[in-house]
Amino acid sequence: MANDSQVMDKLVSLCKRRGYIFQSSEIYGGVGSVWDYGPLGVELQRNVKEAWWRAMVHERDDIEGLDAGILMHPRVWEASGHVAGFTDPLVDCKACKARFRADQLEESSCPRKPSVHPGEFHDCQLTEPRLFNLMFKTFMGPVEDQAAIVYLRPETAQGIYVNYLNVLNSSRQRIPFGIAQIGKAFRNEITPGNFIFRTREFEQMEMQFFVKPGSDEEWFERWRAWRLEWHQALGLAPARLRLHQHGPEELAHYAKAAFDIQYEFPFGWQEIEGVHNRTDFDLGRHQQYSGKKLEYFDQAANERYLPYIVETSAGADRVTLTLMVDAYREEQVEGETRVVLGFHPAIAPIKAGVFPLVKKDGMPELATELYHALKRRLPVFYDDSGAIGRRYRRMDEAGTPFCITVDGDTVSARTVTVRHRDSMSQDRVGLDQVEAYLRERLEV
Amino acid sequence: MANDSQVMDKLVSLCKRRGYIFQSSEIYGGVGSVWDYGPLGVELQRNVKEAWWRAMVHERDDIEGLDAGILMHPRVWEASGHVAGFTDPLVDCKACKARFRADQLEESSCPRKPSVHPGEFHDCQLTEPRLFNLMFKTFMGPVEDQAAIVYLRPETAQGIYVNYLNVLNSSRQRIPFGIAQIGKAFRNEITPGNFIFRTREFEQMEMQFFVKPGSDEEWFERWRAWRLEWHQALGLAPARLRLHQHGPEELAHYAKAAFDIQYEFPFGWQEIEGVHNRTDFDLGRHQQYSGKKLEYFDQAANERYLPYIVETSAGADRVTLTLMVDAYREEQVEGETRVVLGFHPAIAPIKAGVFPLVKKDGMPELATELYHALKRRLPVFYDDSGAIGRRYRRMDEAGTPFCITVDGDTVSARTVTVRHRDSMSQDRVGLDQVEAYLRERLEV
Repeated sequence: MANDSQVMDKLVSLCKRRGYIFQSSEIYGGVGSVWDYGPLGVELQRNVKEAWWRAMVHERDDIEGLDAGILMHPRVWEASGHVAGFTDPLVDCKACKARFRADQLEESSCPRKPSVHPGEFHDCQLTEPRLFNLMFKTFMGPVEDQAAIVYLRPETAQGIYVNYLNVLNSSRQRIPFGIAQIGKAFRNEITPGNFIFRTREFEQMEMQFFVKPGSDEEWFERWRAWRLEWHQALGLAPARLRLHQHGPEELAHYAKAAFDIQYEFPFGWQEIEGVHNRTDFDLGRHQQYSGKKLEYFDQAANERYLPYIVETSAGADRVTLTLMVDAYREEQVEGETRVVLGFHPAIAPIKAGVFPLVKKDGMPELATELYHALKRRLPVFYDDSGAIGRRYRRMDEAGTPFCITVDGDTVSARTVTVRHRDSMSQDRVGLDQVEAYLRERLEV
Repeated sequence: MANDSQVMDKLVSLCKRRGYIFQSSEIYGGVGSVWDYGPLGVELQRNVKEAWWRAMVHERDDIEGLDAGILMHPRVWEASGHVAGFTDPLVDCKACKARFRADQLEESSCPRKPSVHPGEFHDCQLTEPRLFNLMFKTFMGPVEDQAAIVYLRPETAQGIYVNYLNVLNSSRQRIPFGIAQIGKAFRNEITPGNFIFRTREFEQMEMQFFVKPGSDEEWFERWRAWRLEWHQALGLAPARLRLHQHGPEELAHYAKAAFDIQYEFPFGWQEIEGVHNRTDFDLGRHQQYSGKKLEYFDQAANERYLPYIVETSAGADRVTLTLMVDAYREEQVEGETRVVLGFHPAIAPIKAGVFPLVKKDGMPELATELYHALKRRLPVFYDDSGAIGRRYRRMDEAGTPFCITVDGDTVSARTVTVRHRDSMSQDRVGLDQVEAYLRERLEV
């Protein structure tokens, strides 16, 4: 990552230029804190979600997948505590019309007259704090009354809890087991920001692991370690990852213990995933509010109990942002600044660029043939436009780990050069060996 | 598909039993017309979306992917015509409180006193029709006033239109080219129904292809043919697929020509995908409403024009339902009813069951070993519970094309039986040949 306080601005600009991320509805001036993934961004995000699903569902015997709706019965959010308690204290300024979180006033300042010292609001006329519920609400059916209110889910977890017996009864699972889900959630944040870090619409990758009470602390420790390892395996700089344990004052009402997996962003250490011991709070509440028994019957031990839940909750957008921030660097090469997204090859959206050195002497034909042969198996990109150095730079910015150039020797000796993004070194590889050469280095 | 008017009820029941689809928030009595995908349903739906993305994005050079937000700038929906015109005429009954679409009264009847002849409402007191907008609305920010209204997108297409120049400028595409997107959309339907066919929350797989005016009819015909072929390749019964051309009275305001790809469900022929020639209507409106030029500059021809758009719009849930309905059958086998989901192996959620014939004599060890070796590469399922015939039946219902049984001969001769779901025939295959045997038949 570049040691630069402007790195976020540069990243936002690169994201637009290379088709990673665009501001939503940009031609209309944008919409507050919603972002759209462009051609490369959607592939990067797909690779993140795919890596998570593979690790959490496909490679394990004890976790089942689920995809629950965004709209749920409104009683779900009474049971979960969100209707009563999912609020932020809001403060308005009558003078400048700005809006602040009352619990973050010390780090804020007036947008009209930014203070040298945050927390000072010289000409502001702040109102008393009032509680503002962060759930987006809408109405189902044509009548907009209290009975028709439904919410956009503020977390995917509740979709797992209310389906836990359905999953248990239709699969062959026994406790301990988990349910994993990837999906959108919505929070009407007062102060969203930091690009795709805190947005009003975002995607979660959540897993809820159901365990016997008494075994929860052991499972909590396991999941904390496993999830940290998962982030490390994506190639993040180890020094920028850490665990942060919630102190008693930070713990949510449902949690017995909680750790954040944090990353050191240019804007500070921030949570990218939470691992929580939620006890039997959620199932207990749903049992109470629905009137349905949600106990597990352990046939072997002939006993019934309400399972404890260990949750792992990651933001797909946050993981994607982390990967981009971690991968971003600038280097001075031959008197020019080279911008690189140094992604781990396994998550890079494009695995290789394929270039004819020049547009003649049979090179475009051979390059096109190679491109089509590779494309059936791997995401590759063809480029014949501009000097070869410029084409390398474009691929560096896009995060593509390898560039394959078809040149005069390809025509005569059927070899190509494979250029490595990070070292910029080049290997000479036989034309019929290119796919094997790439596969060995891509870990895909 | 079973020739049975109750087939939908049976399918809904199977979906719950085998973990394909559950009613949302079931423990709270369910929420109107939202469904959750269980462990097998989420994998089936993933296979559908993956097949679409592969065909539309990864295997083509002329289509880019996109993932735009559900929440967009509200002006988008003024430009698109949805605020003014995305309405259904609604009729209420003052007596029985039922609600009908005024344009479907002839096919409806009172829910309290269902008539022999639909369209007769003996004791009903129907109101005059009033227009009801189908967009869900919510408020962004803490103030619930007109200025804060945003909508849940009723289609993903608009996210593509407003991003078209961003995609064009960040990719190396030239017209003709397309942008593809998979994502959730929401419609506050008055009369949802038929399981996951018409729901208030659903997932679209849309592709917008940008072409030069004058070449639009040719591209329209190509896409109509390609999309029909895609559905056929999923293994659907050819006689249940057809094209339906929109007559002048059916054509949407933006369309110059439109075809539905229809499937014959137990509840009749219904659209599963639409192919539309939308002309330059959408880009023209966004140009007008945003004040931003959205013309394409053709460098080779040195001319500017507003592209025409050919749209292919499929429902992921509808394709999934189609596959399930098409795959569902009942057979009489040895005096018992065998229920089968005869999925094409490429889209089946589980590719093979792995069973030890009995839980002794070294069979569980060998079966477990085989299971773990396969599971790293293919979705497989281990089952050692109950008689082998019952295990076959469970896999038949789950749609699993192959079952591999480890028996006495596996221990002595290192061979297994591979049982085929559809023919119920069995092959004897070497233990080290199982993966190759499956791959050859799975087309994965």
